[in-house]
Amino acid sequence: MTLVRQPTRAGVRDAAAKVAAILPPTPLYVARIGGVEVALKAESLQPVGAFKIRGAWHRLTALDESVRAKGVVAFSSGNHAQGVAWAAKRLGIAATIVMPSDAPAVKRDATLALGAEVVAYNRATDNREQIAGRLAEARGATLVPSFDDPWVIEGQGSAGVEAAAQMAALGLPPATRVVAPCGGGGLAAGLALALPGAAITVVEPEGWDDMRRSLEAGWIEPVGPNPPPTACDALQTPRVSELTFDVLSRRGAEGVAVNEAEIAAAQRWAAEKLRLVLEPGGAVALAAVLSGKVRAEAGMLVILSGGNVDIQAYAKALADPPPQGEGGHAKHGGGG
Amino acid sequence: MTLVRQPTRAGVRDAAAKVAAILPPTPLYVARIGGVEVALKAESLQPVGAFKIRGAWHRLTALDESVRAKGVVAFSSGNHAQGVAWAAKRLGIAATIVMPSDAPAVKRDATLALGAEVVAYNRATDNREQIAGRLAEARGATLVPSFDDPWVIEGQGSAGVEAAAQMAALGLPPATRVVAPCGGGGLAAGLALALPGAAITVVEPEGWDDMRRSLEAGWIEPVGPNPPPTACDALQTPRVSELTFDVLSRRGAEGVAVNEAEIAAAQRWAAEKLRLVLEPGGAVALAAVLSGKVRAEAGMLVILSGGNVDIQAYAKALADPPPQGEGGHAKHGGGG
Repeated sequence: MTLVRQPTRAGVRDAAAKVAAILPPTPLYVARIGGVEVALKAESLQPVGAFKIRGAWHRLTALDESVRAKGVVAFSSGNHAQGVAWAAKRLGIAATIVMPSDAPAVKRDATLALGAEVVAYNRATDNREQIAGRLAEARGATLVPSFDDPWVIEGQGSAGVEAAAQMAALGLPPATRVVAPCGGGGLAAGLALALPGAAITVVEPEGWDDMRRSLEAGWIEPVGPNPPPTACDALQTPRVSELTFDVLSRRGAEGVAVNEAEIAAAQRWAAEKLRLVLEPGGAVALAAVLSGKVRAEAGMLVILSGGNVDIQAYAKALADPPPQGEGGHAKHGGGG
Repeated sequence: MTLVRQPTRAGVRDAAAKVAAILPPTPLYVARIGGVEVALKAESLQPVGAFKIRGAWHRLTALDESVRAKGVVAFSSGNHAQGVAWAAKRLGIAATIVMPSDAPAVKRDATLALGAEVVAYNRATDNREQIAGRLAEARGATLVPSFDDPWVIEGQGSAGVEAAAQMAALGLPPATRVVAPCGGGGLAAGLALALPGAAITVVEPEGWDDMRRSLEAGWIEPVGPNPPPTACDALQTPRVSELTFDVLSRRGAEGVAVNEAEIAAAQRWAAEKLRLVLEPGGAVALAAVLSGKVRAEAGMLVILSGGNVDIQAYAKALADPPPQGEGGHAKHGGGG
């Protein structure tokens, strides 16, 4: 019924090989949580501070030379923007990023520093999809979606291939369950393809748990009207896509929602036990496990997906009184 | 004149091979500071959150079986304690750590979690060297000094061997200058042995810059009476040792002192640009470069030596108003 290419496991393996050729593996930690050893993958330590660099690299390297010459366009206020800008710079492709005019200066500066052109839009009056689409059309440039794209999904899945190799090298059993943050579902769908033997749990902030509801309903349900505020700027996706939903639905994935206090507690735990800065959206999977909403189990792989923080908001999250919840003790760690 | 074995470059190479067999390399970042690319070595991502694991491993693995059977003793309230406890646990050696009774609960808990016995002493009335010495004598156990020991110095130097290989793999020139934090000088002396072609700059908190003064004077000068308070608990060493001073002095090393505001600014920069949690003492070398007190140069290697923080103090350091100083932009990164 559809002419869109479906993401595949072979595509994920191809992406993993391409990513391994250019980026060292992000560190995998083993921490004791709830009495068992859990693997934690620190994608926050990617050059742009998030896994998004993987999908962008796989997508842009798949473009023909003639297509590359016309440039790429993406809309994003954050991590996807930096991933596309990084990959484009590395490949000598002109990148245009459509960003809200009120995007944090630090994220805009980082994108500009990677050589991308930034086009601002008014969040209240403009439609970013339309602006990006018109820009791409006028220039003949290629639009790079942040999750609704088979290459982008496969690229994100390379994190799972990498983690599986690291777990094996550490003598751990193959992953039985992957716990991953979910905005549009690109990372989770890619991981599902990468690790066919693992159960999949996606984690979203409360009120933004549309993937959870969609998986329960069996069809895509968007985020409801007036969703609550959340610190997870990276996970505020109003609607997932057919591509990501189909992969996760067929795999029997399930969803869990965490609250803002649980997310801040996970940020504190990561700072104290792993010495890692995690952004709120990058800490939701860890929050689900530390809070006990997802029960820790041997063979569990938890993705720490990003670390780009507004430093004042981050300081505030760390300073809040520590919660009572169960804690874990990080045992090993290190790169590679 | 002395019967003490001197630390050697061959010993550093031996230590590096032993460490590489058990610990993955810590990530090396390349950041643009002051217009040039500088390498940053994230020792804060070691399993115990600091480079100290290196010296402890080299020292303990060098002990005979009969000596190991009688256990080891160390005095430390922090990173050295955890390094020794980690290495001892891995080797099945009984470890006793002499810690002040007012040591942070988080550090005591981490040491206990590594299986060590913790003996508390009263900082005001007891002498920790005497307590540790008596314990070691009574049990026939081996005392593991935190810096005044050739194996410990050689072990810390393995970070330099590792960094040199990573810099070469990234296509960077060999290190022309190493900038490292200095408490007793074990890390800096080890790095000097590891990297014979590099100039050495050691960095200390203001008022605790006894190595700087010693290097200028040509003999060891202790910290003066009533030194100012500093957040750098890891660098409050009242006097360096002959072993470390001799290595650094012969190499023409120089010292720089940084203030508390510069240290907090470096902690903020590392959180924002590298997504790394650094403890104050682990951030002093970065502070020296970011502040311009040590001028950034191509081929520079900066050691980020530790990341064990008191979370409330850390949140406060991040929340302080950002300084005006020159900033840099982190360009690449990642493990291995």
